[in-house]
Amino acid sequence: MYEEFVDFRRRLNEEILKSATLNTKRFFNLDSSVYAPGKLDTKTKELLGLVASMVLRCDDCVRYHLIRCVQEGLNDEELFEAFDVALVVGGSIVIPHLRRAVDFLRELREREKNGETLSL
Amino acid sequence: MYEEFVDFRRRLNEEILKSATLNTKRFFNLDSSVYAPGKLDTKTKELLGLVASMVLRCDDCVRYHLIRCVQEGLNDEELFEAFDVALVVGGSIVIPHLRRAVDFLRELREREKNGETLSL
Amino acid sequence: MYEEFVDFRRRLNEEILKSATLNTKRFFNLDSSVYAPGKLDTKTKELLGLVASMVLRCDDCVRYHLIRCVQEGLNDEELFEAFDVALVVGGSIVIPHLRRAVDFLRELREREKNGETLSL
Amino acid sequence: MYEEFVDFRRRLNEEILKSATLNTKRFFNLDSSVYAPGKLDTKTKELLGLVASMVLRCDDCVRYHLIRCVQEGLNDEELFEAFDVALVVGGSIVIPHLRRAVDFLRELREREKNGETLSL
Amino acid sequence: MYEEFVDFRRRLNEEILKSATLNTKRFFNLDSSVYAPGKLDTKTKELLGLVASMVLRCDDCVRYHLIRCVQEGLNDEELFEAFDVALVVGGSIVIPHLRRAVDFLRELREREKNGETLSL
Amino acid sequence: MYEEFVDFRRRLNEEILKSATLNTKRFFNLDSSVYAPGKLDTKTKELLGLVASMVLRCDDCVRYHLIRCVQEGLNDEELFEAFDVALVVGGSIVIPHLRRAVDFLRELREREKNGETLSL
Repeated sequence: MYEEFVDFRRRLNEEILKSATLNTKRFFNLDSSVYAPGKLDTKTKELLGLVASMVLRCDDCVRYHLIRCVQEGLNDEELFEAFDVALVVGGSIVIPHLRRAVDFLRELREREKNGETLSL
Repeated sequence: MYEEFVDFRRRLNEEILKSATLNTKRFFNLDSSVYAPGKLDTKTKELLGLVASMVLRCDDCVRYHLIRCVQEGLNDEELFEAFDVALVVGGSIVIPHLRRAVDFLRELREREKNGETLSL
Repeated sequence: MYEEFVDFRRRLNEEILKSATLNTKRFFNLDSSVYAPGKLDTKTKELLGLVASMVLRCDDCVRYHLIRCVQEGLNDEELFEAFDVALVVGGSIVIPHLRRAVDFLRELREREKNGETLSL
Repeated sequence: MYEEFVDFRRRLNEEILKSATLNTKRFFNLDSSVYAPGKLDTKTKELLGLVASMVLRCDDCVRYHLIRCVQEGLNDEELFEAFDVALVVGGSIVIPHLRRAVDFLRELREREKNGETLSL
Repeated sequence: MYEEFVDFRRRLNEEILKSATLNTKRFFNLDSSVYAPGKLDTKTKELLGLVASMVLRCDDCVRYHLIRCVQEGLNDEELFEAFDVALVVGGSIVIPHLRRAVDFLRELREREKNGETLSL
Repeated sequence: MYEEFVDFRRRLNEEILKSATLNTKRFFNLDSSVYAPGKLDTKTKELLGLVASMVLRCDDCVRYHLIRCVQEGLNDEELFEAFDVALVVGGSIVIPHLRRAVDFLRELREREKNGETLSL
């Protein structure tokens, strides 16, 4: 799933930015810059992005932020506490997204264990 | 679709509960106990879960409650009246989910007709 | 709150239907007819409308269906079990709407106790 | 309602931009520039903003785009056809927002009739 | 993707209308008639449907309205400006849906270039 | 606003818990316990709750978590960076909620400056 996700994301981002307006490009830039370290560190900001994505129930957004969280060194215990906030705020409707998130996280941990560097 | 859905659901629920916090487990328990018979019977509560899932547009949640509704003996005419409430409350954005729900329901009815017992 | 809600609703429905297209009128008719008794009784359908409104977090829709549920003779114990389904499906984000629902329900029960007939 | 809405909006936008990060300011700029005339005219873009705001059920966003639509010269018949799209896509849950939109639109038309220029 | 989408949509719409109540049929009719030309032309109304579908994040609804927009002769530059409104109103959570929309639009343009008539 | 919010919240929580089922009580407990310090500290968890509330656009939930964030010692610069994540993930539809959040935050800071202890 990881490779399919990353490939589609890269390919379509390129495709979009080819036809996109200046406004689309500005939005994409802004979407990167809010997660840059500031008064809050990137670890915290990626957790914010992860939980926001879970309560809004966007699987691809959850996948993106899971990769970033793993890159930032967050461990499973920390991630499951963040999942709990999403679950209680967003309700049982979040559960199917939690299942897919955990399935994806397992794959990321496998790849890590095999010495693979996760890129985006 | 039924088998794939049930298998993935079971496998990931196990996976989640292995790593989950006490809070996750409590949420999963609560998610069962609100549908237990009380002053409202389970039939009514499962219909509530079904319509809530449709207006929130969660296909997996719809599938889960469809299986439960069929287990509780609700017939198609009753289910289509519940679908109508979801459709009017939630709007045309519900229609693609209605299509997938009806497709899934047809499979459940086929399996019933073949004497299969639907489990979760 | 009850009077203000009912008055604004009536006044603006009239206002809307004066300027509305045929399509708007059809939608308003449909919005009544899906709650008419059929294979499911009105009691059940109003509960479906109530829970759908709570998980979609629309206070005015919740108020409308609470009035209808009280008119249909549903008691507090039944309503609180329906609230529980909404709470677990929709999450803690539903709680502020639950507070306003319970506040409104208290007023409806007061009016009932004083022999008032609730109209819409 | 119009004055209260415009005053609060202005006062808080100032307040926000005083403490805001560069990213917040960029977002606010982007939020203006996507409605500027391009291949689609501003009239069409404001209608897009209006319908998007109605289906997402944000009263303040609806109010903002209603003022802009009136400034752009859209008449009630055009606005009600746009409302119909929002109503059918978003469902009956949109109705309370439609009521408040029509109430606000009536006030805007009154002010227009009295020769007032609507500003933001 | 186009063929799979159109086939499933057709087959399930038939299936639904076979078992559906009169209310379901009325809703489906209403869902067509709000896009018929009136004071606003169909081009504008389809753009409204497209943006509403994007901010509500319904891929199938986006696909449907993309086909309709292409049939109505809207070009990519117009569509990307509509996408921008959806992106700014709905936020980064819209991006995965934008990716899938652009991927689908590319296929529609290919088919157009090959002289195919897009039907629904 | 602070006092009105806190009073209504307290009064209705009591009212709810008087009539509530065991399931409601369990949900309310769970809603507290997921923010307790664990592998993530309470500061981080309250920021998660704040951003989740903003993207789901629940003013009362935002107010609650703002009070908690202020109690936990988060400063305005940190809060505005969290607001930015909510704004970019959730889009311009979040802006009216951001305005009300900043208005409420200003009141909380005033009360702090006057030596008041914020309670819930």
